[in-house]
Amino acid sequence: MNNYKLWIQYDGTRYEGWQRQGNTENTIQGKIEAVLSRMLEQPVEIHGSGRTDAGAHAKGQIANFWCEKNLKPQKVKDYLNQYLPQDIAVLGVQEADERFHSRLNAARKTYVYRIWNNTVPNVFENRFMWQMAENVDIQLMQLAAVYLMGEHDYRSFCANKRMKKSTVRRVERIQIEKLGDEIRFTFTGNGFLYNMVRILVGTLIEVGTSKRTPDSMIEVIEQRERIAAGFTAPAQGLCLTEVEYE
Amino acid sequence: MNNYKLWIQYDGTRYEGWQRQGNTENTIQGKIEAVLSRMLEQPVEIHGSGRTDAGAHAKGQIANFWCEKNLKPQKVKDYLNQYLPQDIAVLGVQEADERFHSRLNAARKTYVYRIWNNTVPNVFENRFMWQMAENVDIQLMQLAAVYLMGEHDYRSFCANKRMKKSTVRRVERIQIEKLGDEIRFTFTGNGFLYNMVRILVGTLIEVGTSKRTPDSMIEVIEQRERIAAGFTAPAQGLCLTEVEYE
Repeated sequence: MNNYKLWIQYDGTRYEGWQRQGNTENTIQGKIEAVLSRMLEQPVEIHGSGRTDAGAHAKGQIANFWCEKNLKPQKVKDYLNQYLPQDIAVLGVQEADERFHSRLNAARKTYVYRIWNNTVPNVFENRFMWQMAENVDIQLMQLAAVYLMGEHDYRSFCANKRMKKSTVRRVERIQIEKLGDEIRFTFTGNGFLYNMVRILVGTLIEVGTSKRTPDSMIEVIEQRERIAAGFTAPAQGLCLTEVEYE
Repeated sequence: MNNYKLWIQYDGTRYEGWQRQGNTENTIQGKIEAVLSRMLEQPVEIHGSGRTDAGAHAKGQIANFWCEKNLKPQKVKDYLNQYLPQDIAVLGVQEADERFHSRLNAARKTYVYRIWNNTVPNVFENRFMWQMAENVDIQLMQLAAVYLMGEHDYRSFCANKRMKKSTVRRVERIQIEKLGDEIRFTFTGNGFLYNMVRILVGTLIEVGTSKRTPDSMIEVIEQRERIAAGFTAPAQGLCLTEVEYE
């Protein structure tokens, strides 16, 4: 079997997330599969490194698909970019080892969450940021982030209440920067639970606006219940920027 | 009379340009006037520094309006940003001299035109760039730009065939840069005719793709006929970035 690895970017505003759901074709996965299936004249299933939420974006989504035909990567790339909508782009196609699986082999992922912290909208980037005008203390959030990093059971930050698998993850980096009127969060870890990044951002914002203290994060983690953490920040600020493999 | 100066930004993708046309409210001017008229409970007319085309954008559009009421600039700004659509923003409101007119007093304008020069779309900025994959020689365009700068009769670069007023303008700067996969043109001048920037870009692209020579620009200017110049580059790459006053 041939195995092809895809590097994909998208503006997720118009879509119901990455994952194809039954007959719902209005997903990134659905759009790409439709074009690939037409090209190969047979049904093709692609495997993403992870789902992204409805309205969330990707600069560095990775996917793969197996196929009996021997394809030229450049041809696959050109065909996809010709027929995909303008808000989905395939930046690269590579032949991969037959055993490569974009989700199962992912060692590390990085997400960026962007907030536009001003009452006046940023008309050029508002599709990619959550606009929130309230005053936020960056240093308080940086203190809280120290407690949220490391290897922990992140069940409090998981929107899936029936999650039966392990909710232990390792978060190596939570970087919080103020860039002009933008607040930018960067999260790197070996995996993220359903809505975890957005709940981490919501909780950090509650710290930055003095609704919680930085060291209360210890207890939030210990409680292992979704109710212990903060609100879920809106999807439009979220972007999957990188997936790393060993 | 009180006179208020507005600094406006917009993503023009959804609009039929700056200028209100009869009953057409789907213009930037129309949207702003509607909100201002509601705030002041009387019809308000605003004057822009210049029209921008359907689909073109602005980072630095300037407008003004006269009004008998004495308004707090901050209140006008907040009200506008609260009720305008997310793709139009008012970055500043200032009291101006009663005689200030945003169009008649404009001394200099700067437009930026952006091309995404790759077969793969840039999903995050494609609303603000014209995607054009052909190979373009930057140096040839820079040579041509030398002939296109200065004080000239730019009638060849004017889409309005019935233009009765002077078509003489002074263009101080035509800067052409390659920034990764982006080609960025910056034009500064004392005024620009209808579609002039887009026709300049189209003509320069014809030079950059070897359909014309740089020194043929001399003749294009001399002919003083629209047909002598190149095609009109699409509006979506165009952005009014600055308007300067004495």
